[in-house]
Amino acid sequence: MKVPVLQNILSANDQIAARNQALLVQHRVLAVNVMSSPGAGKTTLILETVRRLKGRVKIGVIEADIASTIDADKIAKEGIPVVQINTGGQCHIDASMVSSALDKLPLAEISLLFIENVGNLVCPAEFRIGAQTGIMLLSVPEGDDKPYKYPLMFTTVDAVVISKMDYLALSDFDPGAFQNAVRGMNPRARLFQLSAKTGAGVESWTQWLESLLKGS
Amino acid sequence: MKVPVLQNILSANDQIAARNQALLVQHRVLAVNVMSSPGAGKTTLILETVRRLKGRVKIGVIEADIASTIDADKIAKEGIPVVQINTGGQCHIDASMVSSALDKLPLAEISLLFIENVGNLVCPAEFRIGAQTGIMLLSVPEGDDKPYKYPLMFTTVDAVVISKMDYLALSDFDPGAFQNAVRGMNPRARLFQLSAKTGAGVESWTQWLESLLKGS
Repeated sequence: MKVPVLQNILSANDQIAARNQALLVQHRVLAVNVMSSPGAGKTTLILETVRRLKGRVKIGVIEADIASTIDADKIAKEGIPVVQINTGGQCHIDASMVSSALDKLPLAEISLLFIENVGNLVCPAEFRIGAQTGIMLLSVPEGDDKPYKYPLMFTTVDAVVISKMDYLALSDFDPGAFQNAVRGMNPRARLFQLSAKTGAGVESWTQWLESLLKGS
Repeated sequence: MKVPVLQNILSANDQIAARNQALLVQHRVLAVNVMSSPGAGKTTLILETVRRLKGRVKIGVIEADIASTIDADKIAKEGIPVVQINTGGQCHIDASMVSSALDKLPLAEISLLFIENVGNLVCPAEFRIGAQTGIMLLSVPEGDDKPYKYPLMFTTVDAVVISKMDYLALSDFDPGAFQNAVRGMNPRARLFQLSAKTGAGVESWTQWLESLLKGS
């Protein structure tokens, strides 16, 4: 009995996700679902991206957390539209939550929308939210073995960002081994290595986002 | 309709968890549910603890991951009993999975059992598995704001370990602010700061485990 119930939930979710995506396309908004473990640097990368693309790209952000508005408060200081979703315990956001958040955003004034998911390498990969692009961060201190442990996330995203490269010297993380593992599972994923703190590698990332915007 | 179904699942899980705990108590095994984000250092801390307590404490380990046997293989090299649970996609282990794993362990030869949960700060806090003690690791690179974002995990554990203290100089993590946040939510939790890599602070942790064993 459990599986059919789960399928119904997913199917209802996918219907709302399709509606979200239609709304985004209609407003020419490219939405990026940003996923990672807790503390891998999602908000920091979004903030750095906002600063670098300011004046060129109109950015909006949806922040999601189990609780608190810590990340949305940081984004709001940049003077761009931001909405916080508190999932209240759920380990991921779903299409319905994103639908409510989209209602509160000035979509006509946004061309790039970051949707920062709950920090989690498992559940967010299972739920469509309507974003056209899905990306994940894996921070250097987490270790290079994570693709084998959390395969669904690594196989479903459009890009994998190795974040916190400034920690590399202190770590036994092997970027080559990690990238080979990702390429074996998901050959089409774009790969980036960066440190939002030092700025190293961030330009390739923002160039890729701008190329997506030109193509959308 | 969704909530009653969830309650039934939880209640069935809690019954199996109670049976697991009775089995553990009967065999005088102290089980510790070890939780954290992916890559916070659960396996590394367990390995370091096994090495330090070797000859004094008989340790067994249950490793859980979505996929792979990477961590169980590392533990097996220490020559102690280890069982791998692959959850196949589930973001946490449940009591039934632990029950199956306990059947495969020589409980009469174990006094301390580490149960390493799936790397996740959300779901594992919601499911009892029968362990007498729950602990979590929060690694320095994850940042000191996590108690506000993942409150359930921080309020339900018996101890919070700040891991990867060797990264502190590179980070803006504030151990004092973090500990105040944890104490505000969970005054009875024991707090530890350590680096399993350098060994700093590990002795307080193993002394605490030994004190629990004497009391059990």
